[in-house]
This record gives sequence, structure tokens and C-alpha cells, in this order.
Amino acid sequence: MLIERIERVLRANLKEAAHPETPPRLGQALVHAVMPGGARIRPQLALAVSLACGDDDPHLSEHFAGALELMHCASLVHDDLPCFDNAAVRRGQPSVHSQFGERLAVLAGDALIVMAFRSVIRCKTRQAHRLADVLGYLESAVGPSMGIVAGQAWECEPVAQIQVYQRLKTGALFSAATMGGAACAGADPRAWRVLGEALGEAYQVADDIRDVIMDTVALGKPACQDQALDRPSAARQLGLEGALGYFDQLIANAIEGIPACRGAVRLRNLVLKESERLLPLQQRSMALDPLASASMASS
Amino acid sequence: MLIERIERVLRANLKEAAHPETPPRLGQALVHAVMPGGARIRPQLALAVSLACGDDDPHLSEHFAGALELMHCASLVHDDLPCFDNAAVRRGQPSVHSQFGERLAVLAGDALIVMAFRSVIRCKTRQAHRLADVLGYLESAVGPSMGIVAGQAWECEPVAQIQVYQRLKTGALFSAATMGGAACAGADPRAWRVLGEALGEAYQVADDIRDVIMDTVALGKPACQDQALDRPSAARQLGLEGALGYFDQLIANAIEGIPACRGAVRLRNLVLKESERLLPLQQRSMALDPLASASMASS
Repeated sequence: MLIERIERVLRANLKEAAHPETPPRLGQALVHAVMPGGARIRPQLALAVSLACGDDDPHLSEHFAGALELMHCASLVHDDLPCFDNAAVRRGQPSVHSQFGERLAVLAGDALIVMAFRSVIRCKTRQAHRLADVLGYLESAVGPSMGIVAGQAWECEPVAQIQVYQRLKTGALFSAATMGGAACAGADPRAWRVLGEALGEAYQVADDIRDVIMDTVALGKPACQDQALDRPSAARQLGLEGALGYFDQLIANAIEGIPACRGAVRLRNLVLKESERLLPLQQRSMALDPLASASMASS
Repeated sequence: MLIERIERVLRANLKEAAHPETPPRLGQALVHAVMPGGARIRPQLALAVSLACGDDDPHLSEHFAGALELMHCASLVHDDLPCFDNAAVRRGQPSVHSQFGERLAVLAGDALIVMAFRSVIRCKTRQAHRLADVLGYLESAVGPSMGIVAGQAWECEPVAQIQVYQRLKTGALFSAATMGGAACAGADPRAWRVLGEALGEAYQVADDIRDVIMDTVALGKPACQDQALDRPSAARQLGLEGALGYFDQLIANAIEGIPACRGAVRLRNLVLKESERLLPLQQRSMALDPLASASMASS
């Protein structure tokens, strides 16, 4: 199972972080930031693409997949800080700064970025000549021009380029997952761009829809943040029905974007399963029936 | 000149960060965090060691040296945040969060960590097999068990191990500079540990001494912060005269720790010059004459 390989590599990363010399509360904050996880969709995607391409270097693909998740966790910890979203809750438990204070939240985010690079740098790859390429996908997915940091920093600009912002904020790690996953297995990464970009945007649209229709308890984080923080949102721009149609189109694009390969069927199933997890039937009904949604939210 | 090679690689890094897709204020914050610089002692040390070992891969050694400085700048930006030192001034100009706000300071620090890795990952090395080793020195110098993040996180523990704290907070990047500098040139890094550790500790002791005897204007950052924040300090533990003697001993250890190599004389001169820059004669006199120091501070 993909998820088991991912949890194993994440546990290994955290164990190393809990070195005797690691300050104990920092170690606890790191575990809190990573465990228990969300759906681990980015690393699952990376590993599924590596498998579809032959996965001839499983150490490299697993550590790259784990590194994507560590980067994602780092971005959540820093996004939740008081100066950004000031979110008290994340994945149904207190956010890192709520539990450990702001200083350890800043440091835990920094540490997770470093641990992500470390995980790939120190993995026992059989293909050392792939290392620079794979690390390149990792760093550009989080960096200041094309990555997560850029996406978050557009929130600090007086005039934000909304499309750029959305693509970077969630799309960067998804594209890195598919293209980097291919690079781990020695395949041509360019053929895998469409799948990553379409899924990344679908993920963002689903998030926008859920932000509107779900309450805080069900969401595991504060609801209606996009409106409260005046953030761009497909649900606000297209309406809930329009956003649902757009989501379905993006999933169709993602499936069409899967290159011909021996793992194509498995990948198609993963994308379909993920689309149902992202927007279950019940939530679709809620999106199309505002009254049901309203009574649900007030219950 | 070492310093010219370093400034050139830093300018190249910043130019890349100022990509058309980089949010403009983030780009400005990154330049502000790196330029104008301090003494650039860590990258100078790394490059001097690479040269002493033959410097057969100048792209790698320059980008590694630049990466150390970017990591150092990242740590300064995050250390200055309101939740840590809340420092309004750094290197004689407004700190990043004073000038650009807390959100961009968090993001600029994150970006600088990523840019440091990127600089080494994407450098045109002739010796790709050295890349993982060199990146390993970079990541462990900043990571959560043995690096800068660990050092800073000890400040958040109820019981701090002071020696561990001091070694990590400043020593980690100095050891990485000497050992990683050797690794860039294909030499045995272990022979270069003593030089890095002794210089790192000397740097910390000099900082402690200056924190006591200098005023805010001369220091370019708030003075007497160690006492105000109840931080461990050689000057507080040993007295100013004791701390001066300890500093001289560390410089002697550093010089003795330089391995026999064709660049030994050049390195010895660099260490001596740096020791005079760290604690000029005038400051030594002030340290030994508290009355002069007091009148200086009130002038």
C-alpha cells in the first residue's frame, strides 16, 4: 500500500528529528505537525507516478514523497500563525502555535523545510545522478518565485494576481509530485505536468467548496475563511453549482492527462477515488441544496 | 578576493529570486535581508578552506559559501521576529519585519532557507558525486537536532543546556563552513572540524563581550540584549577580562587547528585578521576599563 510506505518514511524522519540532542519541545512540536496526518495525497500521488514509471529506485521515490508531505506540513504550520490565518485548529487538533507557542511554531516550520531536504539528500539512492533533478522539483515547489512561499506572499501584495496565487499556493506541490515522482524513476517528467496541475487546481476548488458548505467541526479548521479573509475562491466566483462543474472538468482533465504507461489504470482509479474523497456525494448534495446546507451548518 | 566571489554569488541568487513571478514585496524583503551584508565571515571561511584544499570545483565552493550566508540571513530574519528578540534594527537598518511586516518576514526567512539549498542543488558542479555530502553539511548545520533551529529552540525549553545551546546557535554554521568547504574541494572534512568549532565559539564570545560594552548605535542592533533576555553569555559568566582571555585562547586553538596544507599561511592570516575585526584594540581597552566604557556608552 502506498500510504504505508509513506507513513513509514515519515516516522523514520521524525525519529531522526527526535535525536537526543533535539530540544524536547521542538521534537514534540514536529511530531504534532506531522502526525496524525491528513490524506497524504501529495506523497501518494508522487509514489503512484513513480510506480507507474517502474519505481526502479524505491528509496529515492519514498523519501521524495515523504519530503513533499513535510513541506506541506511546514506550510500549514506557518500559514496557521497569528500573523497569517491565526488558526487555532488544524486537522481537528490544536494548531502547532496554539499548543506549543508561536516561537516553536516558527521553528518547527523551519525545521520541517530542512528535514524535507535532508530526507532526499540522505536517502540511499541507487541513482545518485538523479538527485539534483529530484531536489530541484522539491525546491522550486516551495520557493519564492514559483512555489508555496510565493503563493503565500501574494497575500501580502496590495494587488494580487489571483490566478498566479491559486496556482502557486496549491498547484506547485501537486506538479512537483507528478513530475518529481517521474524523475525519481528515471522517466521524462514533462509528460506528467498536466496530471499534477489539473489535480492541484481540483484540490483547491474542492477546498473552496467545502469552505462554504461545511462547518468548523466537520472541516477540522475554521470554516468560511475565504470570505472572512476576502480570499479568491472558485465557489465565490462561479457559485457553488458552477464550482462543482469546474471541479468535475478538472478531474476529467487530470484523467485524460495520464500518459500511456503500465500503471495508467491504477492511477486513474486513484484520481477517481481521490475526487470522491475530496467531494463526497453528501457534500455535493449540500452544495446544490443551500437550504439543506444551511440547516446542516446550524445543527 | 574571497569577498568579491561571495557577493557575486549572492547577487546571482537574489536576481533569480526577483523572477517576474516573484511577489514584488517578497523580492524586496529578500534583498533587504541579504544586502548590504555584515562581514560575510562564514562564507569567507568556507571559501578560504576550499582554496586551501585546492578548490578544484569553484562553482560548488562558491555556491556552498553563498548558501551558508543565506542560511545565516534566514536565521537573523526569524530571530528578529516579535515572538523572539523583537529587534527593530539589524545591521544598522530596520529589521525585515519592521520594514515589511511580520508575514513577509516569516516568508522571507522560509524563502532564504529554500534559496540556500537551491543555490547548491542547481550549481554547475563538475563533481556531482560530492553534491550529497556538501548538501549534508548544509542541512545539518541548520536542522532541528544539531543546527541553528535546535540552538534557537533551546531558548524555548524550561531547562536549557547552555553549552549545547551556544555550540549549536553559532558553532554549527562555522563547523559546516570549514568541513563543507573541504568537502567541496574533495578533501577530508574531519581534519577541518577544530578550526570551525574554535572560531565559532570565539565569534560567540566576542558577540557576548560587544553586547556588554557597546551601545545600540555602534552595534547596529539593540545592546545588552543578553542580560535583558537572561541569555547565557561568556561575559556574564567569566567577567569581561576572563571572557577576553578565553577569546584569545579560542583564536590560538583555531590557528593550531589549521591542518598542514598549502593554504595554511593564508588561513592563519584570515583568522588573525578576523580576530582583530571581532574585537578591535579600542574595544579591548573598553572591556578592561569599565569607566571608559561607561563614559563611551553615555556619550
